[in-house]
Parts: sequence; C-alpha cells; structure tokens
Amino acid sequence: MANSALLSELQEAPSLFEAFLARFFHESAERYAYGPLFEPLYLDMTEFVGRRGKRIRPLLLLGAYRVFGGERTLSDNSLLKAALSLELLHAFILVHDDVIDRSERRRGLSTFHKLVEERMGKQDGAARVGENVAMVVGDMLFALALETLRAADFPAERRDAALAHFLRYITDTGAGEVSDILLGTRDIARVSEEEIARMYTLKTTRYTFEAPLVLGALLAGAGEDALSELSRLIEPVGLAFQIQNDLIEYQKFKGVNRLRQTDLLEGKKTLLLRAAYDQLGDLDRSFLQLCLSTRTSNDTSVSKIEQLIDKSGAVASQSARMNELFRLAETEVANSSLTPDQRAGFRELISQIWRQTQHTGAD
Amino acid sequence: MANSALLSELQEAPSLFEAFLARFFHESAERYAYGPLFEPLYLDMTEFVGRRGKRIRPLLLLGAYRVFGGERTLSDNSLLKAALSLELLHAFILVHDDVIDRSERRRGLSTFHKLVEERMGKQDGAARVGENVAMVVGDMLFALALETLRAADFPAERRDAALAHFLRYITDTGAGEVSDILLGTRDIARVSEEEIARMYTLKTTRYTFEAPLVLGALLAGAGEDALSELSRLIEPVGLAFQIQNDLIEYQKFKGVNRLRQTDLLEGKKTLLLRAAYDQLGDLDRSFLQLCLSTRTSNDTSVSKIEQLIDKSGAVASQSARMNELFRLAETEVANSSLTPDQRAGFRELISQIWRQTQHTGAD
Repeated sequence: MANSALLSELQEAPSLFEAFLARFFHESAERYAYGPLFEPLYLDMTEFVGRRGKRIRPLLLLGAYRVFGGERTLSDNSLLKAALSLELLHAFILVHDDVIDRSERRRGLSTFHKLVEERMGKQDGAARVGENVAMVVGDMLFALALETLRAADFPAERRDAALAHFLRYITDTGAGEVSDILLGTRDIARVSEEEIARMYTLKTTRYTFEAPLVLGALLAGAGEDALSELSRLIEPVGLAFQIQNDLIEYQKFKGVNRLRQTDLLEGKKTLLLRAAYDQLGDLDRSFLQLCLSTRTSNDTSVSKIEQLIDKSGAVASQSARMNELFRLAETEVANSSLTPDQRAGFRELISQIWRQTQHTGAD
Repeated sequence: MANSALLSELQEAPSLFEAFLARFFHESAERYAYGPLFEPLYLDMTEFVGRRGKRIRPLLLLGAYRVFGGERTLSDNSLLKAALSLELLHAFILVHDDVIDRSERRRGLSTFHKLVEERMGKQDGAARVGENVAMVVGDMLFALALETLRAADFPAERRDAALAHFLRYITDTGAGEVSDILLGTRDIARVSEEEIARMYTLKTTRYTFEAPLVLGALLAGAGEDALSELSRLIEPVGLAFQIQNDLIEYQKFKGVNRLRQTDLLEGKKTLLLRAAYDQLGDLDRSFLQLCLSTRTSNDTSVSKIEQLIDKSGAVASQSARMNELFRLAETEVANSSLTPDQRAGFRELISQIWRQTQHTGAD
C-alpha cells in the first residue's frame, strides 16, 4: 500500500488497540473467576497491562501486517488479538524482570510485586509474598499471551507458524535474560562488547522488534524469504535502539537522582559502561572497577561512576555508534530483496518508533 | 482394548519414555546453542528433567490415549512428544515452586536454583542469582513444553484443542499456586477446608491428573462429552491423592528430621492441618495457632505442632476421608457414561498410580 495511506491508517491504530484491550480484559473476567482470593489480582493484571505504555510491539505488528499486504482492516478482532498477544508477552516479561531487578516503579506506578506487597500492609514476609505472587502471575500472563494468539482466527497454517515463531522468541528472550543476569556477576573487564551486544539482541530486539515484524508479515501471508530478510534487517536497528535506551536511562537520572541509576547499582553490563571502560586510562579503569564492585546503593560511588563515564567520552562514542548502526540499517534496507513499497513501509515504521521512543525508551 | 492387553502394553511405557526423553534433549541441544554462558544451564535443564521422577503425568496420558481407543503404538514419536510436554510442564512448575518455597532438595538432589547458586561458589549474591536464573529457566521450560506439544503430529483440530486445554490447565495451576501463597499468610482459623480443597484441585489435580487424561483421550479422538466426564470423575480422585500426599509428607519427617517439615515451617495450609485445628479443643487450638505464627525453623515449635496434630486424631480422620473419596470416585465411575472398557481402563490407570505413589508422593 502507498506510504501516505499506511500512515493515515496507522494513526488510528493506538485508539483501536486501547479500546480492544479494555474490552478484552472486561470479557475475560469470567475466565479468571477463581474466587475472592484471586479477584484483586485480576484487577491488578488488568490495571498493569492497561497502563499507557507506548505499545510499540502491537503497533509494529499491525504496521507490518499492512506493509506486507495483509487485507484485513486494523479493526479486525483477530488481527487485534495477535497484536495484543505481544503486549501480554511484554507484560509477562516486565513482571518477571522487575522481580529479578527488584525494581519498584514501572510506567510511573508500582511494579507488580510491589502492588501485591503494598496491599499486604506491614505483614511479615510481605516483600517475599509480593515476589512469589508476581512470579506466578507472570506465568499466567505468558499463558494468556499464547491463548490470545491461538484464539486469533487466521488460516491454520499461518497461525500455527505464528505460534512456533512466538515460542522461539520467548526462548531467545529467556536466553538473553539469563545472559544479562550472569554477565551482571562479572567484572566489567571480563565482559566483551560482543557479549553485551548479543545479550541485547536476544533479550530485547527479538521480542520487541523482530517478533512484531515477522508475525505481522507472516499473518499477512509473507513467505519464509521475506521473514528471514526482516529478521536480518532488524538486528542493527534493534541494537541502535538499545544503545539509545542506555543513553536515555543514563541521562535521565544523572546528577538528579543517583539512587535511580538502577542498572549501575545492579551491576548490569551495558554497552555504555563497557565503552567507558575501554576509553579510560589504566588508573581510571581500576577506579571504575572498584566503584562497580561495591554494589551498594551508595551515592558517592554512583557519583564517581558518573564522573568516569562522562570523562571517558563514552556518551559521544555510543551516540556515534548508534547513528552508524542506523546508517548501516538504511544501506541494508536499500539493498534488500524487499519491494520498494515494503522498504518504504519498513522505514516508516522504524521512524515512527524512533519518534515515540527518543526521549523515554521503548517500554 | 482389553484390560490385560492394556496392562502389558503400559509396562513398556516407562522405558520407552525415558529413552525418548534422553534422545529429545540430545537432539534439542543445537536449538539451545546460545553460547558458553548458557551451555551449563542447558546441561542443568537436561539433568533436572532427566532425574527419575515417577513420570505419572506422561504415563497417564499414554494410558488414557489407549483406553480411549487411540490407534498409535506407544512408541509413536508424536504421542511421546505429547506425553513429554506434560513432564516439561511439570519441570517448569517444580522449578518455580521450589523458588517460591525456597526448597533446597528435589528428587534427591539440589533444586534448580540451588544448582545455579552452588556453581557460583561463595560469590556475593549467589543465592539471588540462583533464584533469578531459575525463574527464567522455568519460563523457558514452559515455552519448551508448548513447543513440544505443538510439534506433535496429530490432526490439526485435535492438536489445536490440546493446546487450548493445556494453556487452560496452566492458568488453573497458576490460580492454585497464588491461592497457596496467599492462604499461607493467613491464620489457620481463617482458612476454610473448602478453600484448601479448592486450592489443591487447582494447583495440583488439574495438571497432574485431569490434563493427562483429557489430553490423552482428546488426542485419541474422544468427544467433548467424554472429556468433561473425565474432568468430573477425576476431581475426587485428585483430592484423595492430595490427602495421601499430606499424610506422606507428614509421616516422612515426623520425629526424624523436623527441619524438613517445610510445609509446616512455611505456613502452608494443608487439609491435615486444618483438620487438626478443627478437632482440637480451644486451648490446644490457640497453642497450635501460636506455634504456627512463630514461622521460624525452630525445632521446638515444630515438635509441638506435631504433638498437637497427633493428639487431634487428624491423621486418622484424613485417612478415612481419603478412603471415602476413593469409594465415592468408584461409585461415580460405575454410574458414569463411560463404556465398560473405558471404566475398567480408568480404574486400572488410577490403581497403577496408587501403587506408584503410596509411599513417596506424586512427584
């Protein structure tokens, strides 16, 4: 379809999606009628998924569906179900991730485990109960994501292939999360740039960018060749978005609220941190390693890490790398086997996400 | 099929299943080739699932498939995949459950999170890393369970219905786990017998008994009527097995190793405990409540709880209730709409599990 028509159609997608999401949770309530013990948790699930995220995954799926010639309108229930399945997958991943990272805030409100903990008041072990319940509710959101995709009415072969891809992306994401946890236990000198980039791709690019594009195209009827072309093209784009996210997270809290520099405090290995390490002299490197190894929510050490990152010039070099990756992606798209309309559509979808996320990240 | 033929065929099922399982993990290694960071975890997954459990879920599925007229032999790869999907589901649930309960041992060896923790040596935060990794690996086993069922070659409609049921059982199990966690935070006086029984059904009966029977029958071609009859018939049986499990767990550690009475120490609400509370006098009740509320791994309070449970006569009354439930189930089966051969097969499958589990539980 022509680019301008695509654009004007996609403008309606967010409101269509939000309306569908609200209806979906309303209609699924009966399905979760497990009695009074579970009732407040279903409301929490509804509230949590309903929080206004950017919905980049569902919107990318809808966009890719149209770019690859899918004929249904964006208000089609089954198409919206497929889109929703990705937001539910995202919710499941966020709930578990927030337990892993012990995060307290998500989309401006309490994380899921904190919601549960808060409701318990001052009771003994409330924090642990919150984490345990969040783990199980995450599992239930995972099941719901799959149920929702399964319930989408598409030709059997396409839906089946979509399920297979979906499960594969979940496994990749899990491998990325495990890498993130394990790299977090190592000294920065023993984590290579390649390991971090690989972790980013597995942990985030796969389910955030590749899954929506591939599933959207697949449901529209694209063949295996087009799907692998999409997977190849999206990898540098995904990495560029992750670098952008590193920079946003770093700038957001720098000097303002150091105790929210949770990535640094948790020992996360980011490309920004690794670049800083690479670009510092020997003495500063040792100092950086020392500050990172204290692992306490200590304003002084976070402040020192910030000084070292700033001094290293890593912010500038990572910005440059991000731009380079976008340029690379552009060249790859131009030389790809996609049709001119598909290329234009692909570019348009990426720039739309860029506009949406450049100040606040991709959640 | 005739009962004796069924029996002799099922005798071969365990060795067929173990051989298939070993081959499956060997062949799936490539699929999990996420690099050196993930390699030891894949070996852990293989080892964990490979531990000799009783495999009652896969064996029940294979049995139900034959009882309901399925025509493939038990060595059929797709049938074995469907059976395996239930063992993978069980592994996922165990990994998460062990994190929730902070259990240290599973099938005579370390729980999954302990395996990971142990490999990290004395490193800071090793326990937390173990739990986090186990949570994610649990998610990956969940995905693998679904992939395995999806990859089983059955007529499209049956396989699709099997997936739908499977997901539904996972959600039920989650609701049961959440109930277990939340009931654990309440005083025993404020937890009713009905709530505990309902929790048992959701948390364990669904995926342990109902799922294998229903999926086996469904893949064999049974209609919706037979499937709901199976769901109805299995509920009292499942509850009886749970009561048996309470009694086994209690007797296993009584007086011998009180600090392994983890259910008691964790505040779990069991039917045995609730029966003890019901059957004690006022003074003993308050004493029981007090001991339960200390929540420390304290040999004296566990010993006192044991004395009170023994004094209450709950062990005898729960044994009687278990037998009553089995009798009830027998009557229901006799009056059911199943054919005589199906009834005989159902009975045979249940008594086989009974023989397997009566001393050591259903794991």
